[in-house]
Amino acid sequence: MREDLHRAVRVPTCSLRVFRTAKFNIPTEGHCDIQDLTPTLRKHLEDSGLHEGQALVFIPGSTAGITTVEFEPGLVRDLHEFFEKIIPEQRDYHHHATWGDDNGASHLRAALLKPSLTIPFADGQLLLGTWQQVVLVDFDTHKRRRTVVLQLIGE
Amino acid sequence: MREDLHRAVRVPTCSLRVFRTAKFNIPTEGHCDIQDLTPTLRKHLEDSGLHEGQALVFIPGSTAGITTVEFEPGLVRDLHEFFEKIIPEQRDYHHHATWGDDNGASHLRAALLKPSLTIPFADGQLLLGTWQQVVLVDFDTHKRRRTVVLQLIGE
Amino acid sequence: MREDLHRAVRVPTCSLRVFRTAKFNIPTEGHCDIQDLTPTLRKHLEDSGLHEGQALVFIPGSTAGITTVEFEPGLVRDLHEFFEKIIPEQRDYHHHATWGDDNGASHLRAALLKPSLTIPFADGQLLLGTWQQVVLVDFDTHKRRRTVVLQLIGE
Repeated sequence: MREDLHRAVRVPTCSLRVFRTAKFNIPTEGHCDIQDLTPTLRKHLEDSGLHEGQALVFIPGSTAGITTVEFEPGLVRDLHEFFEKIIPEQRDYHHHATWGDDNGASHLRAALLKPSLTIPFADGQLLLGTWQQVVLVDFDTHKRRRTVVLQLIGE
Repeated sequence: MREDLHRAVRVPTCSLRVFRTAKFNIPTEGHCDIQDLTPTLRKHLEDSGLHEGQALVFIPGSTAGITTVEFEPGLVRDLHEFFEKIIPEQRDYHHHATWGDDNGASHLRAALLKPSLTIPFADGQLLLGTWQQVVLVDFDTHKRRRTVVLQLIGE
Repeated sequence: MREDLHRAVRVPTCSLRVFRTAKFNIPTEGHCDIQDLTPTLRKHLEDSGLHEGQALVFIPGSTAGITTVEFEPGLVRDLHEFFEKIIPEQRDYHHHATWGDDNGASHLRAALLKPSLTIPFADGQLLLGTWQQVVLVDFDTHKRRRTVVLQLIGE
């Protein structure tokens, strides 16, 4: 009888789980300020004890985005110049007429870059390239204290 | 014996599950028509009874995308003008020569914006900013009846 | 008693699981070379036996991206021309001064397109449109042997 019980209980094994949603604060300068989130993600993953699964990084708000980049000062300047070229900050956007805001460019850039990124991990390690960092890009036109959401799913 | 049974059964607790995949239809006007999906997502999440996890929004098809934006008429016009500037509708794309289509711009815009977005939720609420809506952007050159896929994972 | 046991065991049913993380190699030509990953994804999904869930496709490295497109030669040329227009390869980027590299454009394009894409599946089928393929876009300035990560979650 005990044999049967143990066999029955093992059948629905399922170690997959949502690890508790984490939020962490990042001060930014706005104007395409780029902040490296990778060390914080690595720490959270290590603390979770999970070994295989996915890390979702999400920025609530419509004037910032999440992507990956080789985080070095040259590329940070290149990204600033790229976004300024295709969506200049000092233009008169229709959005400004709606609310008297000055950050139409911030909204357009954020809609293009998008607020969400999912990174797989295995053996307890994010499967990023050696020169690939997960970054928050804040397009708003002033300093902000951003709250980034991190959610781990895995086993 | 009943004590042992109950203890054994509790060990593999796992409340994580895929909630049934939902599809819902959205009529659009094409030409960068932007539709707010947020109320539908909120309703689906509420109906699911899930409290913590992720909502995947996906648009099948290669001429539309999913992103977030502050959904107000000024920004809708700004987005139209932005996509028209970087990828004009009335140009002669190589794609037109392949099939006799007229929607090369629609395909390029969609490949850039991408068809997928994952939003975390906790306490039964999508973790969006106050002025951040999840939108479908239909870049096709005519009216469409789109089918958006929503998949909830969580507990 | 056996009745009770079976009822108890069924309560925590949970068929959701992380399927083993897969990596597969893709040789590319660089310079915005576009490779169709869809047949490989379909094969992996079929082999997994999963019927409902999500496929995460991720490219480690900061000079390539993942998106969907109707994979036909005309659009491949259109995408080349689009990326060359907004982020030309032969420009002097600040990144070049940092490491003596020549691939600043590759990094900018990759940060814009992003390395991650999640596709839902149901009834064992990816919920893609008929003319929608999942593609790797390699922006680097030379031939590469890329390793793409595929992670299936589902039941």
